[in-house]
Parts: sequence; C-alpha cells; structure tokens
Amino acid sequence: MSRSPGRKQENHKISRELFVLTYGALVAQLCKDYEKDEDVNACLDRMGYSIGIRLIDDFLARSAVKKCRSYSETADMIAQVAFKMYLGVTPSVSCSSATGNEFSLILDKNPLVDFVEELPAERASLCYCNLLCGVIRGALEMVHLAAEVTFLQDRLKGDAVTEIGITFLRKPEDRKHRK
Amino acid sequence: MSRSPGRKQENHKISRELFVLTYGALVAQLCKDYEKDEDVNACLDRMGYSIGIRLIDDFLARSAVKKCRSYSETADMIAQVAFKMYLGVTPSVSCSSATGNEFSLILDKNPLVDFVEELPAERASLCYCNLLCGVIRGALEMVHLAAEVTFLQDRLKGDAVTEIGITFLRKPEDRKHRK
Repeated sequence: MSRSPGRKQENHKISRELFVLTYGALVAQLCKDYEKDEDVNACLDRMGYSIGIRLIDDFLARSAVKKCRSYSETADMIAQVAFKMYLGVTPSVSCSSATGNEFSLILDKNPLVDFVEELPAERASLCYCNLLCGVIRGALEMVHLAAEVTFLQDRLKGDAVTEIGITFLRKPEDRKHRK
Repeated sequence: MSRSPGRKQENHKISRELFVLTYGALVAQLCKDYEKDEDVNACLDRMGYSIGIRLIDDFLARSAVKKCRSYSETADMIAQVAFKMYLGVTPSVSCSSATGNEFSLILDKNPLVDFVEELPAERASLCYCNLLCGVIRGALEMVHLAAEVTFLQDRLKGDAVTEIGITFLRKPEDRKHRK
C-alpha cells in the first residue's frame, strides 16, 4: 500500500512541533481570557467541535474509508486511522460497557502535551487537550453519530495514561433489526 | 506494508489540516479579544516569538544543519529546510537589497490559509499569518541574529503572492573582516 506516490499527499504532512506549540499558545490565551477552568474547557470543546465538522470532509476524502457498521468499528477507525493521520499516534481502544456504546481511547503518549510539563496549581481542572474531544464530537455528528466525548484520565493530572471516553448516544431505532 | 522505516521520524509528522484549523481558531479568538487589527497582529507576533525561541532547538536537533555563513545562506535555510519541515512548503527566496541584509520569502501557496477564503471587511488590516513572522524572529534571535520580519504582500489581501520580508539587523562589527 503506497500512500504517498504523489506530491499532493506529501504536502499534507507537516512537522508536529509547530502545531503543538501553537496549540499551547491557544490554551494560554484562553486561560488569560477565562478565569474558570470550566470555561476554558468549554471553549476548547466548542472550538474543537467547529474544527471537527470541517475536518470530517478532509478525513473522508483522504482516508477513503468505508462506512462503519458498528460503534466498535467506528471507535477503531478514530483510533487507527484518524488519530494516526492527524496526530501521528494510535491510541488503543477498549470497550468499557456491556451495552457496547462506550469506548475508551487510551494514549500512552499524548503528542499535544510534548512541551507541557504539568498544569499550574491554579489550573488543576483544566482539560488541556479538550479541543480533541470537541473535534471527535463534531466529526461524528457530521456522520450522524451523536456522542459524548470527554477526558476520563489525563497524564497531565497525574494519571497513568491519558484516556478519552466516547459514549455513543443511541437513538431508539438504532437497535431495531430490520427484518 | 512498510510505511514507517524510522518510527521516530514518522512520529514527528502529522497531517496539516488539524493545525490549519486550530490556527484559525486561535486567530478567531484573538479577533474576539482585541478590537484593533494591530493588536491582534502584535499578539500573534508575540506568540510566534515565544514559539520560535522554543522551536529552534527542535529545528537544530532534527535538521542537523551546519552554521550558516551569510545572511543569504540563512534565508535559504529558513525557506528550504525550516518551511519545508514545519509547513511542508518551500518558499522561493530573493534578496531585495543591495546591502545584502534584506530578503523576501515568496509563497505561491500559503498552507496556513487553506480554509480561509478572504478576510472580513472589518478586518482589512489583519495579518492573518503574523505568527509566522514572530516564529522566524524568535528562532533567529536564538542563533544571535536580530531581524525584523513582516508580511510585505498577502494573497488574503488581494496580492498576487504572499511575501514575508526579513531584514537582518546588522551590528557594526558584522562587517569587520578579521585580518
């Protein structure tokens, strides 16, 4: 599978560090703008949502993936194709509910925090990477999948790993089998 | 499927679109924060400067470039190595002064504005990509080269190309030949 025969493909690739530092500048600016961590988190989520609803077209066009037939396939697609494509890492995926609609993406390494050592004491409730949750939520919504996306664990807060929880919100008709 | 001969190297590469959209969110936030375009421009430049002084270490480590022996070599390095590495494009370089300390980086295509059609009428003085000027200025300063870096032309403002001007600020001893 040769993914970059053409120049066009290569032009989509950039080095991560500039992005990571620019993201840091964005979070720092929001921390200046909003006193409460919750407001910063909400703002990052909203921004991410706006990004996700635009990024999905790019993702579908470039990944050439087929329609997913289950939540599990969708979660795998986010981890193995989308994260790999946009952040250069592949989280592991686990299904965290018997009902099959809750998944965790577990990042051993979170590239977005490369230059961040720890959160300042006065920003203990900050979800530094909350933009990612918004991006995932926005992108999923554009393929008609409503979901809640939140950080469940965060190495920046002393957790062993960084874990993003995705809960697909089923509509009643989702489980109806067409016979 | 051999896509990642050097895993470490590949991990530094990400897809550009997420960066471009995140940068757009940053500029939009600053436009909310500051009424005057000049203040947004100054803030982007300051943020870029802070990024540049950190990014230079990454650049020197990964590019393994040798010390430049002239302003001309330095300008070429910025265009051909740094822009290529961080933004996936290679501007052309021209020397725009007889004194040999003013250079232009000319971008036929500016990846940072991929998703921007035009500036809103009320933001006519916005230097949308001013972060880049700050990054260059900051990075140069860390290798002991003082420079002024500004946008001279901008396709977003209707110019034919996007042109970043770099003026190296010489110290008197710069031109002394050691004999």
